[in-house]
Amino acid sequence: MPNSEQRIAESFARMGLMRTLGAELVLVTPGEVHIAIWPKPDITQHHGFVHAGALTAVADTGCGYAAMTLGPEGSEVLTVEFKVNFLRPATAERFIAKATVVKPGRSLSVCQCDVLADDGEREISVALMQCTIMTVPA
Amino acid sequence: MPNSEQRIAESFARMGLMRTLGAELVLVTPGEVHIAIWPKPDITQHHGFVHAGALTAVADTGCGYAAMTLGPEGSEVLTVEFKVNFLRPATAERFIAKATVVKPGRSLSVCQCDVLADDGEREISVALMQCTIMTVPA
Amino acid sequence: MPNSEQRIAESFARMGLMRTLGAELVLVTPGEVHIAIWPKPDITQHHGFVHAGALTAVADTGCGYAAMTLGPEGSEVLTVEFKVNFLRPATAERFIAKATVVKPGRSLSVCQCDVLADDGEREISVALMQCTIMTVPA
Amino acid sequence: MPNSEQRIAESFARMGLMRTLGAELVLVTPGEVHIAIWPKPDITQHHGFVHAGALTAVADTGCGYAAMTLGPEGSEVLTVEFKVNFLRPATAERFIAKATVVKPGRSLSVCQCDVLADDGEREISVALMQCTIMTVPA
Repeated sequence: MPNSEQRIAESFARMGLMRTLGAELVLVTPGEVHIAIWPKPDITQHHGFVHAGALTAVADTGCGYAAMTLGPEGSEVLTVEFKVNFLRPATAERFIAKATVVKPGRSLSVCQCDVLADDGEREISVALMQCTIMTVPA
Repeated sequence: MPNSEQRIAESFARMGLMRTLGAELVLVTPGEVHIAIWPKPDITQHHGFVHAGALTAVADTGCGYAAMTLGPEGSEVLTVEFKVNFLRPATAERFIAKATVVKPGRSLSVCQCDVLADDGEREISVALMQCTIMTVPA
Repeated sequence: MPNSEQRIAESFARMGLMRTLGAELVLVTPGEVHIAIWPKPDITQHHGFVHAGALTAVADTGCGYAAMTLGPEGSEVLTVEFKVNFLRPATAERFIAKATVVKPGRSLSVCQCDVLADDGEREISVALMQCTIMTVPA
Repeated sequence: MPNSEQRIAESFARMGLMRTLGAELVLVTPGEVHIAIWPKPDITQHHGFVHAGALTAVADTGCGYAAMTLGPEGSEVLTVEFKVNFLRPATAERFIAKATVVKPGRSLSVCQCDVLADDGEREISVALMQCTIMTVPA
């Protein structure tokens, strides 16, 4: 049996950084995880936009949990590496990182995450991650 | 005249995320910038280690400012993209991100950042970033 | 007026490496370019599969030309950087690199390329590139 | 006992693409491998420079063998992923890809490769790879 949504939600709740960023787990479904964050002064870069590192943190977390939804019960995940392109200034009411598993694997999974700026009417991509996640057996 | 150390320190001080992470600008010299962070519960992942996103945020900030030390006075920097490999669990008393400009350019600069775990006796690499920074004229 | 399909085909024909690899330009349409290659002994790695470098060469070429389809007439392209994940052994009758522009820009464009193994019945991804291309005015 | 220099040279000799590119294995030592190529019309891009894909192919091969020098006898290597920045136009009499293992691992190793243009007097970096290699037991 794969890792349950509840197990992933509990793991997410233990991440101090996600709490600090004000991130919320929005969707957990097999092979896909969405995480939202909202702009606030303590996660900005020098111009007041959300820092690339904050967007990356939620994208990485999303990719890890997306891979974890497909891993066997009790398994954990580690980030091997990721690459992110920043496409536009990170200005919006809300950002949502949509992570999907592109190629699941017993040991290594390749994931992508699109970080979207949501201004209430439409979503537009501000960052794009391609990521390698390792599954660690229970 | 290139951007001064003072201008970079002022820019760093405006980054809400760096303050939240407890990051400190340790060295600013032409082509090289060091930033330190210390483990604390509000920057962790689910196992209590420092979150990959926090390490990435300081590495990215270091690369940007390393490029900015070589840019003309008043110029700013943007992160085009980065790639990070995570080499070991992020456990240490202190982490120091050492960013250097590998290839400066008028528009695009390529930087590397080695994030080192410092246990008081020796430094060992926990993450390695290769990064493209864009210089934006004043 | 953007670069014409003919201009791109002429540029492709000048690439010695594409000729050496036996690569063919299969589709050129605004924002998307497909290039095919076929396995042969002189493009292999040590186990007889197509070398990752050969797949990367066609993926990179595809991304460059995909960006070039959106650039102004007479403009050229340069590869700033790319990242590729290899998903499966490269065994098939034919490989087709499908490159698309994810975020066009006047100077920098972000592209993705999916390299698919085509066994005559179905296409399955063997490599995935995320790429930054620079447009150079005429 | 780790893989011998001879075993790596035999593996290299089986790579059709390396022969096609005219690549030569210049150095094999624990944790480091150098491979050279020389410009020729059948490995060019559209302006007559060496194609980024050709440089990438030798850099990837170098990283794989660098990791293989540290793997147990009979083990093989696979490229998980790589990222390359292109720093300058690839013009020189000779290119030499110098690959080193940054972090060896039983399963995954992180390598870097600096591709240098050698004009007979000095070497200057034209491409920089950061790479993840998987060791596969015999």
